[in-house]
Amino acid sequence: MEVGQVLHMNGGVGDLSYATNSRLQSKVISMTMPIAEEAIVNLYCSTFPTTLTIADLGCSSGPNALMPVSQLIEAVEKARRKLRKESIEYQVLLNDLPGNDFNTIFKSMPNFLEDLKIKIGPDLGPCLVTGVPGSFYGRLFPTHSVHFIHSSYSLHWLSKVPEGLEENKRNIFMAETSPESVLKAYYDQFQKDFSLFLKCRAQELVGGGCMIFTLPGRKSQNPASRECSYTWELLAMALNDMVSKGKIEAEKLESFNIPKYKPTPTEIEIEVAKEGSFVVDGIRVWDVSSNQFSNNALDGLKSSSDNVAKGIRAIAEPILVSHFGDEVMDELFIKYSEIIADRKVKEKTNLVNVTVSLTKPK
Amino acid sequence: MEVGQVLHMNGGVGDLSYATNSRLQSKVISMTMPIAEEAIVNLYCSTFPTTLTIADLGCSSGPNALMPVSQLIEAVEKARRKLRKESIEYQVLLNDLPGNDFNTIFKSMPNFLEDLKIKIGPDLGPCLVTGVPGSFYGRLFPTHSVHFIHSSYSLHWLSKVPEGLEENKRNIFMAETSPESVLKAYYDQFQKDFSLFLKCRAQELVGGGCMIFTLPGRKSQNPASRECSYTWELLAMALNDMVSKGKIEAEKLESFNIPKYKPTPTEIEIEVAKEGSFVVDGIRVWDVSSNQFSNNALDGLKSSSDNVAKGIRAIAEPILVSHFGDEVMDELFIKYSEIIADRKVKEKTNLVNVTVSLTKPK
Repeated sequence: MEVGQVLHMNGGVGDLSYATNSRLQSKVISMTMPIAEEAIVNLYCSTFPTTLTIADLGCSSGPNALMPVSQLIEAVEKARRKLRKESIEYQVLLNDLPGNDFNTIFKSMPNFLEDLKIKIGPDLGPCLVTGVPGSFYGRLFPTHSVHFIHSSYSLHWLSKVPEGLEENKRNIFMAETSPESVLKAYYDQFQKDFSLFLKCRAQELVGGGCMIFTLPGRKSQNPASRECSYTWELLAMALNDMVSKGKIEAEKLESFNIPKYKPTPTEIEIEVAKEGSFVVDGIRVWDVSSNQFSNNALDGLKSSSDNVAKGIRAIAEPILVSHFGDEVMDELFIKYSEIIADRKVKEKTNLVNVTVSLTKPK
Repeated sequence: MEVGQVLHMNGGVGDLSYATNSRLQSKVISMTMPIAEEAIVNLYCSTFPTTLTIADLGCSSGPNALMPVSQLIEAVEKARRKLRKESIEYQVLLNDLPGNDFNTIFKSMPNFLEDLKIKIGPDLGPCLVTGVPGSFYGRLFPTHSVHFIHSSYSLHWLSKVPEGLEENKRNIFMAETSPESVLKAYYDQFQKDFSLFLKCRAQELVGGGCMIFTLPGRKSQNPASRECSYTWELLAMALNDMVSKGKIEAEKLESFNIPKYKPTPTEIEIEVAKEGSFVVDGIRVWDVSSNQFSNNALDGLKSSSDNVAKGIRAIAEPILVSHFGDEVMDELFIKYSEIIADRKVKEKTNLVNVTVSLTKPK
């Protein structure tokens, strides 16, 4: 499986789209935004660039795609006015893999820019938005061209499914029953990918440039702990159920694994130190209740589990379809929702998020 | 009608898409490419930038979207090797209106980059491709950030339908029966738009930067001459036929006009001189046989007129649909093809193209 070719959130704006099912991700962006705002304002005030270039990596499509950038620009504009500085240009680089639904973002752009102008006022300088299709495990932007990089809920995706997962059989991610070799294969891939990510970004950022990213991580030393793998264990249960019904071949399931990794803060710090281009300004770990998938706090159990299932479907469907075909998706996610209703909603698991703030020294 | 919202070529890769029906445009790019290649090689050799930023304005989607950029990079790479210079980075900015099908371009990007690497060799530097949605009658790129701008078959589209076309009744463009006021309204809009276009590009180009564009133009002093309006006169005939059959309301047709203009070389030179930022390096006028729409020189008359009709449909359908609705399109274009078979194919009209080469002095 070529992750770069098949990984993308569900496009469009329909019932199963990422645009409609990304409330958790939106909540996470809102929680972490004050850290990013403070960092970009400091950056602006220490250099006063005439063009400020901001990148968002893994922007996806839907309402979350333009939200961080919009808030970052607002924060800088507030500081600029307070200091009575002249208008500046913003270059906004929205990155995601080539299969992402950029058309939907681009079509919403004229309204987005109009709203921003109304919100900020007539002295807002040009906001030049571009889409950058490509993997962030490779170069995306010219050398020394970007001031500020933001990324939310993207860096946990690996560049590929790790090699050596043959023994992971009926699991689709690191699970309690996964052998040690599987955990090692996942960690090795994370180290390789994350180090390459840092190297590329260091080439692209200007001296003094900042990078702030949030990803789902974990607190436990054990990467197969329930804290980070439970959602996928339940999906594996649904897939195994499909196998037992003869709807999916056993070999198909045995050769499928999700290309993601949820690191601890320490695992991130180790890679940053090894790679050597960045200084860590801060790492923060926080819990988000997983019932944030729900669109309404008063939703019943059935509705709540449906929402969790839809949230995971919006994220994982393209990658599942590329392996299992699209005929089995509806049935798979009905089963998945039943399993969630039976197990997860009652258990109130929390998601662990890690926000990392880095600076590239001048 | 908001041109920026509705004007785009037919998306996708189907039978009626621009991707499938843009042979003429492809032919034009090939004819004019040697001029652009010479200009970009001169630019490279006079400055040896470490990152060369190339923009294509009105890139559309389909095979033409990446063709000019690919050839420009090849030309620079040939020169670079001859001079034994180090690899450089290319930043490629693909611009079109927000409704353009960028997704199709982006999905073809990984293969495009792989092919380019095979063609040029392993010492090809990073090629960083981005999509820039927006009207070129406004700012698109940061100040002084672009080295080379290319555009083919895009600049004849105006930013909007000119005001004051009430007397153009049963015509949809400047035609032999259009009153003088209509011709003036079109020319005024061209002047305003083209001048704004030059001003924006002058802000974006580096000193010494170049811009080369080709657009359908005319030789005759009369903008309503058959040379430049015949295609649209025949489409107006098809629309009038639909009115007489009661399929389209007469008022609908009377309020519809195509937002484009085909200037003479002199009209272009006048605007360049008035705006004042650029030096004209050269203007070339050439004829292209309009049967270039045909996919095969041996096609019969029926097939040939169908191809012309499909070529126009790929370009004009979104703008026609936004005004007349999509129910009438199939019938309209069947009629149009009949009219072309009856008239145009026999008359062997030529299209006049104008290629303009400008430099922004250092």
